[in-house]
Amino acid sequence: MEAHKVKSEAYKAAGVDIDLAGRLLSGLKESISATRRPEALAPIGGFGGLFRIDLARWRHPILVSSIDGVGTKLMIANMMNKHDTVGHDIVNHCINDIAVQGAEPVYFMDYIGIGRLRSPLYEQVIGGMAEACKAQNVTLLGGETAEMPGMYGEDYDLVGCITGIVEEEHIISGEKIRPGHIAIGLKSSGLHTNGYSLARRILLEQAGLSLDSRPEQLQGRSLGEALLEPHRCYWPAIRKAMQARIALDGIAHITGGGLYDNVPRVLPEGVMVRFEAANIHEAPPLFEFIQNCGQVDPHEMYRVFNMGVGMVWFVPEQDVGNALEVCLGEGYEAAVIGKVFAGEGNVEIIL
Amino acid sequence: MEAHKVKSEAYKAAGVDIDLAGRLLSGLKESISATRRPEALAPIGGFGGLFRIDLARWRHPILVSSIDGVGTKLMIANMMNKHDTVGHDIVNHCINDIAVQGAEPVYFMDYIGIGRLRSPLYEQVIGGMAEACKAQNVTLLGGETAEMPGMYGEDYDLVGCITGIVEEEHIISGEKIRPGHIAIGLKSSGLHTNGYSLARRILLEQAGLSLDSRPEQLQGRSLGEALLEPHRCYWPAIRKAMQARIALDGIAHITGGGLYDNVPRVLPEGVMVRFEAANIHEAPPLFEFIQNCGQVDPHEMYRVFNMGVGMVWFVPEQDVGNALEVCLGEGYEAAVIGKVFAGEGNVEIIL
Repeated sequence: MEAHKVKSEAYKAAGVDIDLAGRLLSGLKESISATRRPEALAPIGGFGGLFRIDLARWRHPILVSSIDGVGTKLMIANMMNKHDTVGHDIVNHCINDIAVQGAEPVYFMDYIGIGRLRSPLYEQVIGGMAEACKAQNVTLLGGETAEMPGMYGEDYDLVGCITGIVEEEHIISGEKIRPGHIAIGLKSSGLHTNGYSLARRILLEQAGLSLDSRPEQLQGRSLGEALLEPHRCYWPAIRKAMQARIALDGIAHITGGGLYDNVPRVLPEGVMVRFEAANIHEAPPLFEFIQNCGQVDPHEMYRVFNMGVGMVWFVPEQDVGNALEVCLGEGYEAAVIGKVFAGEGNVEIIL
Repeated sequence: MEAHKVKSEAYKAAGVDIDLAGRLLSGLKESISATRRPEALAPIGGFGGLFRIDLARWRHPILVSSIDGVGTKLMIANMMNKHDTVGHDIVNHCINDIAVQGAEPVYFMDYIGIGRLRSPLYEQVIGGMAEACKAQNVTLLGGETAEMPGMYGEDYDLVGCITGIVEEEHIISGEKIRPGHIAIGLKSSGLHTNGYSLARRILLEQAGLSLDSRPEQLQGRSLGEALLEPHRCYWPAIRKAMQARIALDGIAHITGGGLYDNVPRVLPEGVMVRFEAANIHEAPPLFEFIQNCGQVDPHEMYRVFNMGVGMVWFVPEQDVGNALEVCLGEGYEAAVIGKVFAGEGNVEIIL
């Protein structure tokens, strides 16, 4: 496994504590090592991370990779000075982005761009990523932290790159979605990693709320806690559904742009989806709170936020019962929220 | 192949030109498609990028991955308003980091964090990456551009993640390096992607030079041009040497920390390397120029910069002639610059 590296551009004379990086990294060694799958090779050479394709298991292996960031949720983490949850966010977001194609996530790499390495921020971010990787049997194979005082101020950026494997014949592509297919929504845990610019503007700027405030509608949680709620990972439900041979004909990860932008990404030509908002399981209360605070048009809410739906599965009608059962069995709230019709590749939401 | 995506957190009301991203991306389609290897699958689903492991070719495939940034060389690109070369930098830097383990680079993914998407910056960065990928037969499989006005000002960050494949029995690990092995240095094209904080401080702050200036020592080039010279890619020489069955027992990519920090990363226990600076092929003139401007101690120069050596190969004495011939044949200046001795895993440079 590649050691995580810290690259400082802060020249020594500027008084940077060069030992800090080494000290922090050695404290993280154990939690990073705990993510090691048997296919991850021991660190050799130390430039790249190495991972064996297990040919006893994969007959026609297709690699599936995705790179992404956490966005300005990081600014909330910074304001709260709490950085473990964004580690979960980036890992889970990346996993979801390849799990929708049926890929088993196998390893993850991270990049942190930061002004000055600081503790406990660094341990919290890497520790959070290691925890999230461990939870999904993903190896945290390597990473790079670039200390660039001239470029980043107090902010930092966090980027993840996930690699997974899927058998070629099991790729989930969406091309089998037909009129009559049912859309199952899996509940999101909160905003996940999208819509934070609008959320910050409405809640912090316009309404002038503090992250410590505990509005009644948030049912006892502080605004900051609700905003930092980690992105949910849906891979366990997808894996189980694939094992149960449920006809998962298409899956959309609902990120920026909500149902409107993400569902069309998996629809073949000639079909459209009609969602019934009334059928969506109860969304986390943060969405309604934002909508009320900002007097946001409901359609606009659906254009910016996931509105309680973190993922949409498309299955033939006869597989709906089994699919819902798998979701519930794995601890995911799920409901039938829409249906596929003949039409052009877009999305209608009936409010 | 995954489409490149632009994710804007700038809320529409703020007057962002949402069409810009789509327009710029469609102009880049051709150069991105030109990087497509036969193993890259057509875009399906559109969340992750898909790449087939060709089992007719690989018997025991090991994936090798690395993630990295360009560092504050980006600030020079910004000052020069020239962004194609940093695209080459990130691709070549990443390729070198896995080529040292013998891996053939197969696909690359990028992340750009930026305040406001702007043209022609965006086309230059992506276009530069596509060119560099194409040159090495690497697929530009996907990427994410995150527009975050609140986090990035005029600066942007550029991150790359490379994936390569190597046969398990051909992994270059350094563990076969023994006393008597010879160190061959391959010439760098310039600073590559390291040491820019010190270079900027000495040249721009202390000496007050402008990037347009053309100091005599730089032989006709402007300071900005010399600083932006792209990171050289060494994979063609490594591939050729592997094909020629030269005993490449260890390779070090010389990045931040120079020979002192990077060579020990590939040395086994019980050996050390003595380099003779006098034997190093003539370095690009920028190094001496920085040293003179800043009155920097020569050892310090070797601690911060690559000093003209972009890569070091360790080969048994009987392979030196063939190794040098391969380098020259592929267009790389190379020279015997050091030798391995019994001792502890460190580096001595005789100036």
